[in-house]
Amino acid sequence: MSRTSFFQDLLSSVADRGRGILGPSGESKPSVDAIITDCDTLLTSRGEASGVALAARVLARVNDLDGPGKLAFFQRLAERYSPDPHEVEGAAMAYAEEPTAENLSQLFEVAEPPRQELFRRLNLAPGATRALVDMRRELQAHLSDKPDLRLVDRDLVHLFVSWFNRGFLVLQRIDWQTPAHILEKLIQYEAVHEIHGWDDLRRRLAPADRRCFAFFHPALPDDPLIFVEVALTESIPDNIAGVLSEDRQIVTDEKRTVAAFYSISNCQEGLKSISFGNFLIKQVVEDLKAGLPSLKTFVTLSPAPGFRRWLQNYAAQGSSDRRELVGRLEQTGWAEQEKISKDLEKQVLPLAAEYFLIAKRPDGEPVDPVARFHLGNGASLHQLNWLGDRSEKGMKQSAGLMVNFLYDLSSIESNHEKYAARAEVAASRAVRGLLPAQLAKKLRVPSNV
Amino acid sequence: MSRTSFFQDLLSSVADRGRGILGPSGESKPSVDAIITDCDTLLTSRGEASGVALAARVLARVNDLDGPGKLAFFQRLAERYSPDPHEVEGAAMAYAEEPTAENLSQLFEVAEPPRQELFRRLNLAPGATRALVDMRRELQAHLSDKPDLRLVDRDLVHLFVSWFNRGFLVLQRIDWQTPAHILEKLIQYEAVHEIHGWDDLRRRLAPADRRCFAFFHPALPDDPLIFVEVALTESIPDNIAGVLSEDRQIVTDEKRTVAAFYSISNCQEGLKSISFGNFLIKQVVEDLKAGLPSLKTFVTLSPAPGFRRWLQNYAAQGSSDRRELVGRLEQTGWAEQEKISKDLEKQVLPLAAEYFLIAKRPDGEPVDPVARFHLGNGASLHQLNWLGDRSEKGMKQSAGLMVNFLYDLSSIESNHEKYAARAEVAASRAVRGLLPAQLAKKLRVPSNV
Amino acid sequence: MSRTSFFQDLLSSVADRGRGILGPSGESKPSVDAIITDCDTLLTSRGEASGVALAARVLARVNDLDGPGKLAFFQRLAERYSPDPHEVEGAAMAYAEEPTAENLSQLFEVAEPPRQELFRRLNLAPGATRALVDMRRELQAHLSDKPDLRLVDRDLVHLFVSWFNRGFLVLQRIDWQTPAHILEKLIQYEAVHEIHGWDDLRRRLAPADRRCFAFFHPALPDDPLIFVEVALTESIPDNIAGVLSEDRQIVTDEKRTVAAFYSISNCQEGLKSISFGNFLIKQVVEDLKAGLPSLKTFVTLSPAPGFRRWLQNYAAQGSSDRRELVGRLEQTGWAEQEKISKDLEKQVLPLAAEYFLIAKRPDGEPVDPVARFHLGNGASLHQLNWLGDRSEKGMKQSAGLMVNFLYDLSSIESNHEKYAARAEVAASRAVRGLLPAQLAKKLRVPSNV
Amino acid sequence: MSRTSFFQDLLSSVADRGRGILGPSGESKPSVDAIITDCDTLLTSRGEASGVALAARVLARVNDLDGPGKLAFFQRLAERYSPDPHEVEGAAMAYAEEPTAENLSQLFEVAEPPRQELFRRLNLAPGATRALVDMRRELQAHLSDKPDLRLVDRDLVHLFVSWFNRGFLVLQRIDWQTPAHILEKLIQYEAVHEIHGWDDLRRRLAPADRRCFAFFHPALPDDPLIFVEVALTESIPDNIAGVLSEDRQIVTDEKRTVAAFYSISNCQEGLKSISFGNFLIKQVVEDLKAGLPSLKTFVTLSPAPGFRRWLQNYAAQGSSDRRELVGRLEQTGWAEQEKISKDLEKQVLPLAAEYFLIAKRPDGEPVDPVARFHLGNGASLHQLNWLGDRSEKGMKQSAGLMVNFLYDLSSIESNHEKYAARAEVAASRAVRGLLPAQLAKKLRVPSNV
Repeated sequence: MSRTSFFQDLLSSVADRGRGILGPSGESKPSVDAIITDCDTLLTSRGEASGVALAARVLARVNDLDGPGKLAFFQRLAERYSPDPHEVEGAAMAYAEEPTAENLSQLFEVAEPPRQELFRRLNLAPGATRALVDMRRELQAHLSDKPDLRLVDRDLVHLFVSWFNRGFLVLQRIDWQTPAHILEKLIQYEAVHEIHGWDDLRRRLAPADRRCFAFFHPALPDDPLIFVEVALTESIPDNIAGVLSEDRQIVTDEKRTVAAFYSISNCQEGLKSISFGNFLIKQVVEDLKAGLPSLKTFVTLSPAPGFRRWLQNYAAQGSSDRRELVGRLEQTGWAEQEKISKDLEKQVLPLAAEYFLIAKRPDGEPVDPVARFHLGNGASLHQLNWLGDRSEKGMKQSAGLMVNFLYDLSSIESNHEKYAARAEVAASRAVRGLLPAQLAKKLRVPSNV
Repeated sequence: MSRTSFFQDLLSSVADRGRGILGPSGESKPSVDAIITDCDTLLTSRGEASGVALAARVLARVNDLDGPGKLAFFQRLAERYSPDPHEVEGAAMAYAEEPTAENLSQLFEVAEPPRQELFRRLNLAPGATRALVDMRRELQAHLSDKPDLRLVDRDLVHLFVSWFNRGFLVLQRIDWQTPAHILEKLIQYEAVHEIHGWDDLRRRLAPADRRCFAFFHPALPDDPLIFVEVALTESIPDNIAGVLSEDRQIVTDEKRTVAAFYSISNCQEGLKSISFGNFLIKQVVEDLKAGLPSLKTFVTLSPAPGFRRWLQNYAAQGSSDRRELVGRLEQTGWAEQEKISKDLEKQVLPLAAEYFLIAKRPDGEPVDPVARFHLGNGASLHQLNWLGDRSEKGMKQSAGLMVNFLYDLSSIESNHEKYAARAEVAASRAVRGLLPAQLAKKLRVPSNV
Repeated sequence: MSRTSFFQDLLSSVADRGRGILGPSGESKPSVDAIITDCDTLLTSRGEASGVALAARVLARVNDLDGPGKLAFFQRLAERYSPDPHEVEGAAMAYAEEPTAENLSQLFEVAEPPRQELFRRLNLAPGATRALVDMRRELQAHLSDKPDLRLVDRDLVHLFVSWFNRGFLVLQRIDWQTPAHILEKLIQYEAVHEIHGWDDLRRRLAPADRRCFAFFHPALPDDPLIFVEVALTESIPDNIAGVLSEDRQIVTDEKRTVAAFYSISNCQEGLKSISFGNFLIKQVVEDLKAGLPSLKTFVTLSPAPGFRRWLQNYAAQGSSDRRELVGRLEQTGWAEQEKISKDLEKQVLPLAAEYFLIAKRPDGEPVDPVARFHLGNGASLHQLNWLGDRSEKGMKQSAGLMVNFLYDLSSIESNHEKYAARAEVAASRAVRGLLPAQLAKKLRVPSNV
Repeated sequence: MSRTSFFQDLLSSVADRGRGILGPSGESKPSVDAIITDCDTLLTSRGEASGVALAARVLARVNDLDGPGKLAFFQRLAERYSPDPHEVEGAAMAYAEEPTAENLSQLFEVAEPPRQELFRRLNLAPGATRALVDMRRELQAHLSDKPDLRLVDRDLVHLFVSWFNRGFLVLQRIDWQTPAHILEKLIQYEAVHEIHGWDDLRRRLAPADRRCFAFFHPALPDDPLIFVEVALTESIPDNIAGVLSEDRQIVTDEKRTVAAFYSISNCQEGLKSISFGNFLIKQVVEDLKAGLPSLKTFVTLSPAPGFRRWLQNYAAQGSSDRRELVGRLEQTGWAEQEKISKDLEKQVLPLAAEYFLIAKRPDGEPVDPVARFHLGNGASLHQLNWLGDRSEKGMKQSAGLMVNFLYDLSSIESNHEKYAARAEVAASRAVRGLLPAQLAKKLRVPSNV
């Protein structure tokens, strides 16, 4: 429709800017001092006349630095562009005395780290957003060793939260007609169930019962920020092999009542801790509903990545029975022996229910990171699937356990609120029923599903 | 080229979001209290589960408020979402004592007005960026009466500077093949030489010797932020009527050696004081050079909007000769009488040179706002054009005076630096030669052109 | 959606080709002889190596010819590139004797006028389709004087029917976001109810209760072939002024039950007699139904352009009463006098019913050209509207009479067949009821609506 | 640029039409009789009201036919829709007697096989062009057995030549940003040097020294018609392994002086004998020159697919020396033995020169099909490359011989003309110098390169 064409058209230039790879600086060995001098100039120049060129030069030179050079640069950023403590103190006292617009304005001006303004000015250059995201990725490696670098990290996060605001993100369907240079990134970034080359990718995108969606940002046009893979099925799937099987029956349109989100992967390390997943899932649920009225149920088919580690700690502190149980899970091949497997199922599933419903981190939230994500979005814990993932990784992380979280639009809001307020875990009767009676009593409030 | 098509495609959805007009809230009379309650919830909610819907409701309700309602809302924003003075003081003192990453992080967190976070969260809703820009437009009207509202204004400016960073802007050529709903905005926004309807617009866009460029932002896809109109000519034009004349000779491609920027208009009141013009002009110069190698000279044909007002003040403080001269300019019809006009030219042009080269505001910058803009960009004052604009507006503002500022890429950088550092005005020998000898001596440094 | 973006992208080049205006040949006075020599070369060259350049030169030179030059060129085309009568005769006899594949192939080869191959080869050049359509437009002017030129015309028609096959046409919605250079063509081509400039155009495109659709061909990207204007209304409109009124109430979405096609205009004289209208209307009906489920009724609001002329002939052959009636319609101002108007209505409407239902051309089809078009498409005559068009043109052509033709998808097929087979006019009971009893008996078959 | 966006936009609908896969007819076993009845109706219906639906039904039913069903359908087409011999004879005689416009028109009408009109009407349906091209592909298989089906084939060819006229084709660059569903077709269609999966494809598209271009038709948006792969190199390449080597040095921009077309593949069997290659190569040469001014030389690196077959025939008729030579080429492994290979080179290259320059088919054209193609385009035979292709296929077809044909824009026209007129082969002095003296004398005219 003509509604969007002019706009599409005009965006080709932002695309080109975003794509503009910063060439090498052309210098044999850029000096960190010289880069910092440029940063100072960029930061203090009153007009913006030469800003674009200067920003481009800084970013190209930083890009040319070797590892130690980059670390030195980060350290200079941390030392140099923080607020002046005395100025801040003065401004804070003035504001405390007289909280006027003038004083607040002054306070904010001196309290905001000049690094933020520096990063904003670096962003003038074509391709700068990409370069800054990459810069933060490289910064991550040093954070544990050099705690002061967190100053730099926080300023980047503060800007990225603003720039990558949901209001600026773009949801895009990914399918077999998507350009190859985007598709190869899915292969590269898939974090949950590895994509084994192009034929495997085609099987996840092309069939009529598959969907894939990603968020993009206009300034990073060739790089998904996050993507989710969806299978349209007749009933709630309880194992990943069935979902991915080439031999599966592709159900006809009107029988597709379930959308199963079976993989969700963040793509940009440089955007770590800036969360897109909840927006993505909600938007995808809405778009799928609108386009496919036959869909009634929206669930995940999720791994339980922390389960076996928890189990081990738990066993270490528990009875010898438990240690023995954990020991049996460490044997290989039990999953193929039906009798043993059945026996283990009876013992392990109640522990899995405990893992999700009772076990907490010190801050009161569930131990499992995937559970925290979906519960925080307002989903509920719907079903535990014994041997849902028999892959090596699945067996290792969770003894093959998989979970369905349910996105029920009518209760998502209240689930979210209860979880946000009291870390209360919404769970189905079936899952709660797995808990031993004495633990079931511990559940703070009867869950609603 | 296929490089951009996927991206164009994916952006149709951001376009649709950007376009999403916030419907009326559907409530008979939304209460400011209820809106503020929603704002509080939005700001304090830990998860972002319901953020999008909540943000959309706040914006729809604000949109439904009448004038006094909006003012009340703005005042609540100013009162309610400022930093806590005592928290800030405490954090500032801690940081002054021990300027650690932890303390700085804490300081910045309490010193940043919560309003900024509120606006960022409001921006989650589709169409929110448009709504926030409009909100600031309406806020402007109250700033002189209610100085406290400047708190709100400053926070919006701070965010807009970040969101509308050059790195996110899109340069787009506007021509007769541009969608009509964009073109009608040019008619509406043109601020320098009024566009008299569609036929006039066509004359500025369709002919082979015309160009027009605008900056857009992905989140405001249907609204130019700023645009510039360009005439391609054989020599530097000295009057606007010739440039716009329907009967002009359209010079052949290879004779087009001059690109004359004859009009530049900002479009969004809500983005006042966030400057795009210098980026626009420089980008357009680069794009024109690349596409049309015959172009050698890039100049403006600019009004001198402050000239007659300055002349009047100047006369009021000066000799009776000067008062008489100003009086003669107040007569009507002198421009049509060649002898009088010639006589006035001799007397007025030296004053015009003084106006641009010598006269300064208290801050040391030139009096003329257009001059400040182009000189600040690194252009030089190239030529003064007597009776360059005989329109009513032109005669009233500047006794018909027009000016060419020259964008010479080889000196733009040094011009800019000298101007930024010492407010030094780069001017051609011809313009400097108009100054009376005793004033010429006052020029701080010999100019370079 | 990404499904179409690569394709959109690749088509920019066909667009550019289609747009490629053939420059002037650069010769002071191209000779028809030289052009014909080029045509001969183009036609006989075995390889196609130089075809594109040669075709471009022929078209550029033809374009440069003055009026008499073009006529001379057309005459040469008519004389020179017809099949050789004796070859055809020989091939026809051979085929008659032995109707083998070989002989048929040979026959078709010699019977197809070489002009068709010439036109196909001319079409190799960029912009050639546009040039050939324009060529036929110019040819039209000479057809009545020079009947031999019909040879050329028929060959062009034969090719255009193939090239502009429905399978290659593109339906495009036109709205206020359509590029201006397309929109100005609507103003220029509107043939039914004149568009008075851009503000009027905006009123027909921008409001929520308006739609406009056009057919395009990939090789003529900037030129609609035909377009239709649609009003979405609450009930079947009975006059054009109400439809176009600025003060009309814009009905809400769910109340829009009627789509009224109030204007349909062919745009390309060079494509005269190649019919697009029926495909357009059917496609638009389908698209509107799919997008706006509230629509239940699809009608036209059509002029009756032949009515008064028929009435005059009819009166000339009829009683003095009739002559008097026709005389009264020739008075000006009667439409404003209610009593007279009411009186005339009673007498004229039965004649209008006769005009549509009984009056026939020698070939058995209805006299009214608009009626032939819609009835041929399978529409039925639904309603006669007294004083539906009080414009000067409307009063002159049809004494203000307007007609609704109904596109009822369930009967369109059988209507069409009956009309195609027996020129039977489908009409509503209401319209049939207007006929005097003795005429009503003449209706061959009871109509179905 | 906005010039193309509206058009791109409008073409999404032709794309969707073109893509519209004809669903199964839904009937258990469509009868050929029923299909032919529909064809009759489609052909005779006066109005076009129901044409689209009818055409769609015919195509869907044909698609559902099994092999024998299709053959029966083709035979009915051949028998039923040929011109009436007696009508044609009558019309031909009338025209021979009196060659008027009227009589010619009548003649052409009865001489054109009604099949052509039938195919044009079938093309009304969405996706019909695709279906008709596929129909011809299936028809090919029967042509040798059932010569009468050539009637049908010729009519399809006649239409396809018109529909796939160069004027309607679209040149599109293919690169790593092209949608995957297009790219997988390159893998499938590559006919010269097999593409071994996606990684291999990426190596042919993504590097800076690779280009690929294809022709598309608007009605077959997802299917290339023909594509060519190009390597940008520093000098004329003499072997394919070097061109495709992963370890090759990628030369810098300014050193790329040669564009080597190393593979050109037709994609649509259903468009066999409708030639696109010459247009493609010439257009690509022009586009490359315009975009990369450093390019000076345009050559192919071509196989010589008929060389060994010719050599065998030649040997069979020749001396025992020759038979022995051919016998040595049949040994495996000689290519790896330098001494043997050197020795063979001396003996075989003169024969290769003879193969290209002297050996002719009965029609006087060169024996080698690739040579016929490039020479017919106006290229010249530039260089013979011993062991240019050591792949199994290369050794088998041509004992490893590869050839460079040169596209020299300044002589392409005269080369083409000489070749078209007298089958004269343009060849470089170097190639001609390989001929034994007594054969060199046979060359009709000294070649020009």
